[in-house]
Amino acid sequence: MSKLAEFEGFFNPKSVAFYGASNIMQKFGSIHLTNLLSAGFQGKVIPIHPKEEEILGFKAYKNIKDIPEQVDLAVLAINPQLINIILEDCGQKGVKHVIILSGGFLEVGNKEAQDKMKKIAEKYDIKIMGPNCSGEVVTPNVNITHVPWPPRKGGVSIVSQSGTYAVQPLIAINSKIGLGISKIISVGNEVNTDLVDYLEVFEEDDETTSIGIYFEAVRRGKEFIELLDRINQKKPIVIIPIGQTEAGTRSAKSHTAAITSPGYVIDSVCEQTGVIKVKNSIDMLNLLNAFDSLPLPKGNRVAILTMGGGPGTLMSDLFENNGMQVPMLSKELQMKLKPWMPETASTINPIDLTYSDDMQNFLNVLPEILLKSDEIDSLIFYGLMGTEYFKRLVNVPDFMREHESVVTMKNFGDMMEDFFVALFDEIIEYKEKYQKPIILTCYNTREEKFVAYLQDHGIPVYYPEEGVWTLIRMWQYAKFLKTKNK
Amino acid sequence: MSKLAEFEGFFNPKSVAFYGASNIMQKFGSIHLTNLLSAGFQGKVIPIHPKEEEILGFKAYKNIKDIPEQVDLAVLAINPQLINIILEDCGQKGVKHVIILSGGFLEVGNKEAQDKMKKIAEKYDIKIMGPNCSGEVVTPNVNITHVPWPPRKGGVSIVSQSGTYAVQPLIAINSKIGLGISKIISVGNEVNTDLVDYLEVFEEDDETTSIGIYFEAVRRGKEFIELLDRINQKKPIVIIPIGQTEAGTRSAKSHTAAITSPGYVIDSVCEQTGVIKVKNSIDMLNLLNAFDSLPLPKGNRVAILTMGGGPGTLMSDLFENNGMQVPMLSKELQMKLKPWMPETASTINPIDLTYSDDMQNFLNVLPEILLKSDEIDSLIFYGLMGTEYFKRLVNVPDFMREHESVVTMKNFGDMMEDFFVALFDEIIEYKEKYQKPIILTCYNTREEKFVAYLQDHGIPVYYPEEGVWTLIRMWQYAKFLKTKNK
Repeated sequence: MSKLAEFEGFFNPKSVAFYGASNIMQKFGSIHLTNLLSAGFQGKVIPIHPKEEEILGFKAYKNIKDIPEQVDLAVLAINPQLINIILEDCGQKGVKHVIILSGGFLEVGNKEAQDKMKKIAEKYDIKIMGPNCSGEVVTPNVNITHVPWPPRKGGVSIVSQSGTYAVQPLIAINSKIGLGISKIISVGNEVNTDLVDYLEVFEEDDETTSIGIYFEAVRRGKEFIELLDRINQKKPIVIIPIGQTEAGTRSAKSHTAAITSPGYVIDSVCEQTGVIKVKNSIDMLNLLNAFDSLPLPKGNRVAILTMGGGPGTLMSDLFENNGMQVPMLSKELQMKLKPWMPETASTINPIDLTYSDDMQNFLNVLPEILLKSDEIDSLIFYGLMGTEYFKRLVNVPDFMREHESVVTMKNFGDMMEDFFVALFDEIIEYKEKYQKPIILTCYNTREEKFVAYLQDHGIPVYYPEEGVWTLIRMWQYAKFLKTKNK
Repeated sequence: MSKLAEFEGFFNPKSVAFYGASNIMQKFGSIHLTNLLSAGFQGKVIPIHPKEEEILGFKAYKNIKDIPEQVDLAVLAINPQLINIILEDCGQKGVKHVIILSGGFLEVGNKEAQDKMKKIAEKYDIKIMGPNCSGEVVTPNVNITHVPWPPRKGGVSIVSQSGTYAVQPLIAINSKIGLGISKIISVGNEVNTDLVDYLEVFEEDDETTSIGIYFEAVRRGKEFIELLDRINQKKPIVIIPIGQTEAGTRSAKSHTAAITSPGYVIDSVCEQTGVIKVKNSIDMLNLLNAFDSLPLPKGNRVAILTMGGGPGTLMSDLFENNGMQVPMLSKELQMKLKPWMPETASTINPIDLTYSDDMQNFLNVLPEILLKSDEIDSLIFYGLMGTEYFKRLVNVPDFMREHESVVTMKNFGDMMEDFFVALFDEIIEYKEKYQKPIILTCYNTREEKFVAYLQDHGIPVYYPEEGVWTLIRMWQYAKFLKTKNK
């Protein structure tokens, strides 16, 4: 049986039973149930409750065994003292997949209760996610977490030994990064499914293109390292190790049952396997976004196409100080660029268009000339004022609002939206056509519509220096693969 | 005459003449004029135009010499070939401060025109900002840039040799960082006022608490270094050097008239003066925000108060690996915290409240106990779901909307807004009362109201690891001062 099939009940349940949901919306169980529905879940939702007949509009059962149909997944957010009793019920009902959100087990020293849980699971062949976990996200329609920000569908899968890091960055994913998620798994205390299991799932899973790991400790070290080594050659893995100083370890111990390992262990694992280590959750998500959206750079030569001298210069510095090149373009290539640029603009690289207002040249003509050439392997843009810019520009004092030129500008701004979309559609096509990474950078986030449009269509948009670091790390990964496969 | 008084015409003009504004809103000059008005400028705005009688509702003059009243500041966004003729007019009119936005001078090799500009300025005793610059922001009411995102008033002043970096990060300042600005100056080609002049202004200026520099090259090296050394002991300075590799230098040359210096020069200047060097524009703004908002830490001991184990652990790691301590709290202090925490929660430090829903304890009771103690020097929070969280939670499928508990939750969410504000007002008070830095971290940005409220009231809010790095750098600065003043 494939690993994916074994875990099907977590990833594609047709019916989900909820313990702990009630008619009090603030209850943790109610929030998980509601978030699942809001994510557009199409299956059956069945609350189990000792007293209520109906919960949030759904028929409730007193015992899972009273439910006539099959239950694929049970979600438990109840008093830990009841968990093992309920688990026994679930087993008798034939439920094979259970998410236990409740804590109160090994992480607080209650080994006995967790051992008992493991035994019951074994007896009934139940796979448990948790206990003491934050649940899961499986796009497009499953969000069994307490965070009501379901992400768009994409190829990034994340497995996390921190419940908080599994789910709370969803807020930034939604408002800033816009990356596409396939699966997010919070493993909790890993009573009978662990980090290694979910990595095996991600390896098999065609929907997963790149993998993030929040790592605290591993119970199966050998398998883990072998797996990192094997998977990372097909799907890039980014890891954040946590709990590697005295204070960090103290903290980790207090909230999971894990024994953390000192930093140098994971450093050497990363060196050996090529897995990319970062120290910042936003950096990890930015990088996964690029891996999911873009082809890998085939070499280290970058073209910078900029609407501002300063960012073009700082980008050049960062690239050249970190193993990439911003090469001078050949005379021939410069001659091809020249006709489409202001007379005084620099064609050398960075290609600096500051103050040009010809968006078609900036976003379509020049990029295509650059991407087509064999002198560069990646393209990074800086600078773009979108439609939000125009809206703010015409947010003038009252007495000016009716002025003809202000009205014209307002209409112009409204029109720009469609115009931009057409220009961006070209860029999205270039990525496929030329198979080179294309990154946009600016200071706007997803409140600017064009940013959301690009991100949702596979062109990452970052703050300027973030974009540079992301490309540098992509190249480091690509280089690792080249060396490995020599 | 004080430096501030010398530059008064830039910072507090009563009347501003605009060259290049017209009844076509898209024109660069029109945009600058409009942005000034939208920022709430209370003085007189006077367009100068060869043909029009009226521009954007304002009476226009054909020549500045026709204006009956005094003109404090002239802003020039016109064809570079006309600049020196107009400058002569300005001189005859007695204008003492001129911002020249137009490029086309030394940065494109036109030394002659720039030398002539300098001579005219000398003849009439005119101070020029520029040419080839992006203008200025002087809060609360002056925004003479093309970026329509005026920032809130605060103590951060920035001087930039990159026009783009001077003004375009205003977008992120507005949507993410929320820092308060006093002045932003884009120096351009520095024809007769330069980096050193504006640093002298910032030194004198009581409204400036901390200083950011985008640095490409310096014309008066000795004065610059002496000034950095002196100012940085009173007001922290953060610098981003740009243009220090071969490609970076090539780029810098093409858009300013500057000769950049290799990286090791600025490294040694920073080491000598304690000025903080960063490589990322968002990092710089985050750090300036902290310097402007918070007292300096008096020691390296941090308390972490967290709503999530993982972030608490990673924060601990980052602090302890970078010169700060997350000390175990004394038994006595732990006993004081205990009554206000869930039974299973960790009191050791990080203080982990995961899943507690008592916001009053998290935001007021526990922080005050910690800040009052002499065991810690700074406090950092992780985790907070604000009112946006509640709004999204009740964004349920239609059939559930009228359910009593959903309606109750919705009302609860609406009520929370005032409740949160009351809790945050306490935190804002603690900062003054205990004179210790307090930083909040979460994945929300300013679209969440409480983030904006806190930032606007002097409590910085960052992504988790951003907050840690900011505090680490604050401590590095504080330690530098201690050593220096020994």
